[in-house]
Amino acid sequence: MSADLPLSTTERTTLHRLRERGSTDRADLYAVLDAGLICHLGVVVDGSPVVLPTGYGRAGNTLYLHGSSANRALLAAAGQEICVTVTHLDGLVCARAVFHHSMNYRSAMIFGTARLVTGDAQRIAALEAVTEQLVPGQWDYARPPTRKELAATAVLELSLDEASVKVRTGPPKDEPEDYHTGIWAGVLPAQLIFGAAEPDPAVRPGVSPPDHIKALAGHARGT
Amino acid sequence: MSADLPLSTTERTTLHRLRERGSTDRADLYAVLDAGLICHLGVVVDGSPVVLPTGYGRAGNTLYLHGSSANRALLAAAGQEICVTVTHLDGLVCARAVFHHSMNYRSAMIFGTARLVTGDAQRIAALEAVTEQLVPGQWDYARPPTRKELAATAVLELSLDEASVKVRTGPPKDEPEDYHTGIWAGVLPAQLIFGAAEPDPAVRPGVSPPDHIKALAGHARGT
Repeated sequence: MSADLPLSTTERTTLHRLRERGSTDRADLYAVLDAGLICHLGVVVDGSPVVLPTGYGRAGNTLYLHGSSANRALLAAAGQEICVTVTHLDGLVCARAVFHHSMNYRSAMIFGTARLVTGDAQRIAALEAVTEQLVPGQWDYARPPTRKELAATAVLELSLDEASVKVRTGPPKDEPEDYHTGIWAGVLPAQLIFGAAEPDPAVRPGVSPPDHIKALAGHARGT
Repeated sequence: MSADLPLSTTERTTLHRLRERGSTDRADLYAVLDAGLICHLGVVVDGSPVVLPTGYGRAGNTLYLHGSSANRALLAAAGQEICVTVTHLDGLVCARAVFHHSMNYRSAMIFGTARLVTGDAQRIAALEAVTEQLVPGQWDYARPPTRKELAATAVLELSLDEASVKVRTGPPKDEPEDYHTGIWAGVLPAQLIFGAAEPDPAVRPGVSPPDHIKALAGHARGT
């Protein structure tokens, strides 16, 4: 699927309010996903919703989720309708009125049927996407999965076809009469920032973090 | 409900794997919730899951969610089973093996039936909890909601009785044979950090951020 094809606008991905915050650009969806580390996976189990935080990866127009093959909620999602939401908090919006307080954020919500990935080559490609999403460079640096480890891993895929993207930026929007007051208003920006890498105490003496890890310290990522 | 009463252990809040990451302490649940800014609300709409990022607040043993009274997904949750998940990402866990990569995190997952809050006093108390969760000190500083603004706000409550808390900390756990390799392993710590407050360009000249906002710059919060 080309990145310049618009996203679907089904009933549930059509914004009914605050339309100016919405985007139907696939490139915007990919940007929100690529900036993130954690998604929240929604699945219906026994008729009730369950929301699981988990890592993910993207390859082309497919989102991959993985987990232990003993993870019952993840397995429950296979073949079912799921919703995956990725949210980056960019700031707290302090308005003059309590009512107009808000957050600056970028979020993506994806709907579709989760499919269990079964082919070995596709499962390995999915795990590469998930690993590289977490720490780019680790797939080639760390030890690859063994056959036993692959068997212990469940991989789900979700097409990025039915999705909505919402973004809020900028200062608060207050009522006209409140702009004349002496109440301060503005944005408290927030960023997820990496600190210096903390070595496992069991790392062999003389082994330093690779450059692709060292380079992340002090830098920001979405959540 | 006293903070030292254990949380319920229903089927869906019982950890079946990695039990050492679980907690049934109510104080641990409150700590995860109080550290956060955003929750992910799961609700079933037309049989399919929807996961919405939204603000929240806690007062005693009750979680409050709010949104526009025109927010159809939020209203759909009233009277329904919901799942609310709050997740703080604390670090990326880089193992020697791709398979053992993980994240350090604190997360809470709460199940229950959402109730629409209708009494004015309770709605105002809920909005205070939500506002103070976002930026402590703003409820007394900013202009309180008018009757019209209250009418435009939907408030949901959820009892904090059926919940699970999961926490992962520390270095990776690798296979015994991998500890002898020269592969670096450790944790990339991550924190959501506030920058300096950015004034709304329309703030009246001479109006500075209040101390409770200025004090947040450079400090960390959970997401």
